[in-house]
Amino acid sequence: MHPLLRRYLPILDWGRSYNRAALSNDLLAAVIVTIMLIPQSLAYALLAGLPPQAGIYASILPIVLYAIFGTSRALAVGPVAVVSLMTASAIGQVAEQGTAGYAAAALTLALMSGGFLVMLGVLRLGFLANFLSHPVIAGFIAASGILIAASQLRHVLGVPAHGHTLFAMVNSLLAHMGQINGPTVAIGAGAMAFLFWVRKGLKPRLRALGVGPGMADTLTKAGPVLAVVLSTLAVWAFDLQARGVAIVGEVPQGLPPLTVPGLSPDLLGQLLVPAILISIIGFVESVSVAQTLAARKRQRIDPDQELIGLGAANIGAAFTGGYPVTGGFSRSVVNYDAGAETPAAGAFTALGLAIAAVALTPLVYYLPKATLAATIIVAVLGLVDLSILRRTWAYSRGDFLAVAITIVLTLALGVETGVAAGVVTSVGLHLYKTSRPHVAEVGLVPGTQHFRNIHRHDVLTDPGVVTLRVDESLYFVNARFLEDLVQDRIARGGGLRHVILMFSAVNEVDFSALESLEAINRRLGESGIGLHLSEVKGPVMDRLKMVHFLRELNGQVFLSQYDAWMALTGGRSGAAARA
Amino acid sequence: MHPLLRRYLPILDWGRSYNRAALSNDLLAAVIVTIMLIPQSLAYALLAGLPPQAGIYASILPIVLYAIFGTSRALAVGPVAVVSLMTASAIGQVAEQGTAGYAAAALTLALMSGGFLVMLGVLRLGFLANFLSHPVIAGFIAASGILIAASQLRHVLGVPAHGHTLFAMVNSLLAHMGQINGPTVAIGAGAMAFLFWVRKGLKPRLRALGVGPGMADTLTKAGPVLAVVLSTLAVWAFDLQARGVAIVGEVPQGLPPLTVPGLSPDLLGQLLVPAILISIIGFVESVSVAQTLAARKRQRIDPDQELIGLGAANIGAAFTGGYPVTGGFSRSVVNYDAGAETPAAGAFTALGLAIAAVALTPLVYYLPKATLAATIIVAVLGLVDLSILRRTWAYSRGDFLAVAITIVLTLALGVETGVAAGVVTSVGLHLYKTSRPHVAEVGLVPGTQHFRNIHRHDVLTDPGVVTLRVDESLYFVNARFLEDLVQDRIARGGGLRHVILMFSAVNEVDFSALESLEAINRRLGESGIGLHLSEVKGPVMDRLKMVHFLRELNGQVFLSQYDAWMALTGGRSGAAARA
Repeated sequence: MHPLLRRYLPILDWGRSYNRAALSNDLLAAVIVTIMLIPQSLAYALLAGLPPQAGIYASILPIVLYAIFGTSRALAVGPVAVVSLMTASAIGQVAEQGTAGYAAAALTLALMSGGFLVMLGVLRLGFLANFLSHPVIAGFIAASGILIAASQLRHVLGVPAHGHTLFAMVNSLLAHMGQINGPTVAIGAGAMAFLFWVRKGLKPRLRALGVGPGMADTLTKAGPVLAVVLSTLAVWAFDLQARGVAIVGEVPQGLPPLTVPGLSPDLLGQLLVPAILISIIGFVESVSVAQTLAARKRQRIDPDQELIGLGAANIGAAFTGGYPVTGGFSRSVVNYDAGAETPAAGAFTALGLAIAAVALTPLVYYLPKATLAATIIVAVLGLVDLSILRRTWAYSRGDFLAVAITIVLTLALGVETGVAAGVVTSVGLHLYKTSRPHVAEVGLVPGTQHFRNIHRHDVLTDPGVVTLRVDESLYFVNARFLEDLVQDRIARGGGLRHVILMFSAVNEVDFSALESLEAINRRLGESGIGLHLSEVKGPVMDRLKMVHFLRELNGQVFLSQYDAWMALTGGRSGAAARA
Repeated sequence: MHPLLRRYLPILDWGRSYNRAALSNDLLAAVIVTIMLIPQSLAYALLAGLPPQAGIYASILPIVLYAIFGTSRALAVGPVAVVSLMTASAIGQVAEQGTAGYAAAALTLALMSGGFLVMLGVLRLGFLANFLSHPVIAGFIAASGILIAASQLRHVLGVPAHGHTLFAMVNSLLAHMGQINGPTVAIGAGAMAFLFWVRKGLKPRLRALGVGPGMADTLTKAGPVLAVVLSTLAVWAFDLQARGVAIVGEVPQGLPPLTVPGLSPDLLGQLLVPAILISIIGFVESVSVAQTLAARKRQRIDPDQELIGLGAANIGAAFTGGYPVTGGFSRSVVNYDAGAETPAAGAFTALGLAIAAVALTPLVYYLPKATLAATIIVAVLGLVDLSILRRTWAYSRGDFLAVAITIVLTLALGVETGVAAGVVTSVGLHLYKTSRPHVAEVGLVPGTQHFRNIHRHDVLTDPGVVTLRVDESLYFVNARFLEDLVQDRIARGGGLRHVILMFSAVNEVDFSALESLEAINRRLGESGIGLHLSEVKGPVMDRLKMVHFLRELNGQVFLSQYDAWMALTGGRSGAAARA
């Protein structure tokens, strides 16, 4: 088989060894996941501000495409909470909720996001996701959880509130307090209480009854299905929609339609930044789930191929009435725990959902939106783990600052600003830290060939020779710093004849740093002081050889610092020991 | 004297030792600089799209304020070419050239820029300027020079063209080709030819006649004054303004007015990003000029105090009818070469310009704009040095890419996009390079305590012990890389019992990297493999001690790699030598 085919189509790998045992495991997992996904898909579509069927459609073709192109064996792709929220925030800026333009913008967003992911994958740029540091992601997910819960309160209360920031949401809720609908609150609060009890109370009880941990988890995950069934029956039996309870209503019956996303330059321009952010957040979330699950079975995933798998899934969503999707944590864990062995489990899930779309949609006519909102709230409150603030504070103020800024700005200004600010802060802090590298003046440890900081150790020094050990790569952010430092050092020292820069920890010298070294060399030369380098790493040396610098160097390059010391001090015992 | 006063008011330093000799040197320099600055100020105001007097006003109070707060002895502050172009680009987006709103926006821009610079100075954030790498600045200046020259062609041709990108400018010029004014071209082209001759032909001739190099330079710099005088006389004598030659016209006679910049939130919002970019570009240009001149006399400048000096100058410009200013290269060099010894020379220059504003403005009534444009074109073509492309290409493709992107985007999309893209590219490339750090598997050099790369040296290894030397700080961008690398290595090795991470080149471990180390520790533990650290630097160790990691470490921390080797291999000679 051609290696490129094999790389881009992982299905050719696992598909060839597919057997009966795997089939039965995959089928069972698919049934369990399908039952869980029906209410979840409807709920996330509600969160994204889209008609309920969009959530189901977004779980059919995308799952199949991921099964073909993805590398994780257990990842379940579809709508997830954070991406649904980001979708609502992005397309809320270009169209009014409930209009045709709104649903069309969701398709365009999915297409752009898919295209961007595929592009990153083909160019093997998966490392870009690393620009989101762990703490920034943790802070962003926690803050998004709060935003999501706040955004769903309106469905639980039955009021027409809105907003994309915490302040706007709370404000709008307060303004509509007078319009709270009693029956809606009864259903919403009841469902929330029930679901919390299932989480906290039912699981320990099942375990106590001797049910295995995996099974107990799976049964617990079925809680939302029960809540949906019970509350739907309640609305139908007591005609609660006539008393102001908002229901899902008519959902078109049938397979996902073929949809064509709009491509007007205006729309593309407005959605570009959100599409990039959604892609990256979705990718990071998905890859970390996939990696966690793969590690449990000693399997590997390929992040660059994951980009292609997720990209294909999103493009699929764009053409079948869906919206941006990614690998979800809870659905993947259920899939894994239910015994899914290969991506075929995903394909069977898609089949199950397609059957649901064709046959079961009339059953959700009376399903109250308050129940869906309650399932979302209970699910996302599990994401809200603010302990990251405490943990980063204990370890590093810089990381803490990045998390705090991410959380505050996500809540105050929305998801896009929050995550962008988190990335900028992390990168800025890293650059700041490397902008003032540690530089130690070193001397020879007597009786050895080792050189150590003169301020920490009893070492030999020579008044005519200064050795500076540079503990960082030299590049534009710190180039000028070294220039200033050398200038300061020679301004202090009388009788100085030689300056040695010890490059043992210098992994790179960029063009700006080269210019700074040239400036240092020129100034030292004008003062009659030699500039020498020692312990220059191979790649750095190769690069320096490409330009004039070594020829113009007003001194020598020594392989080891000890060679430099012996040559420049003459190794004489007159070198004074420093107390 | 209170040290804070001394820090913030460098004038208290040099002012106390001011004497008669310094006074006479400063006075002479001021006369020479004033004569040069009059046409230059008018020309840069034209470039910024402002009335001519704005250029003069921007050189009076700002110079005085810089003399009080600045640390450079020779820097001359006022309008400069690149900042004038950036000003035109920024305020062209909020108001129509020639309207009152346009001049008012220039004041607001100067105030914001000044406030931002003072803020950076007080917070000692001058290092932020380092985010602009040398090659990006060089590329930006070269591209700006091309843009400036292109923007001035319309005055030389006498056509009403416009635009802020090279394409728009050329397009607009071509569209107006039919309206070219003959007498204007005669004056503009004549002035350009004359000024080029002064640069290339006059200076060698003066040197041949025995004139010293400094004096020859200064006389050459007087070329624009001569061009201004001659062309003004020509317009007046032949009544050329009646034949379509655009002239400077009425310039208000008097001292700079007191102006109050507008502060509407809308305006502030629109000008925020341009103000920040102008501040940083101006600061970088100014500091590099100041550093070059200070180094010649073994003086030092304080970059953080420079921010305050330049900030004060800009705030001064905002309240006296000016626009954003900075330390200019050509005016500073003339000032230095003419013998300026202290910032008092600047104050005398300000006095000279004030006299000009009061008494001499009627003399420029007939001055043709084509002459001013010609002086700008000849001056900025000296900035266009595209050799940076060749030099970076020879040294490093990454630096070349940053320069090329800066130049292309500055020309194609304008100054703001260009410089922002340059910064983003440099930072991105740096992060990319550190995202895949060099990690070497090392072994013991026989008979020593040194460890070297097993692929490059004949070293002792042990099949049960793997040592990985990490040649980069560990932080969020490369944290996952290390995780993958260790996973790959243990997947290969049979019989592995211990993994040692040698941290001699690790200067930092951030929270993301800590989590990766925890994950590595957990996975190795599950496989029954010990994780050990060696040669951990003091600051890194201090930080690791603050969290649970060391307690949960599934192995030991060794002071030296040799200790680790001896302890884990038992120092037995059974360790196999590798060919």
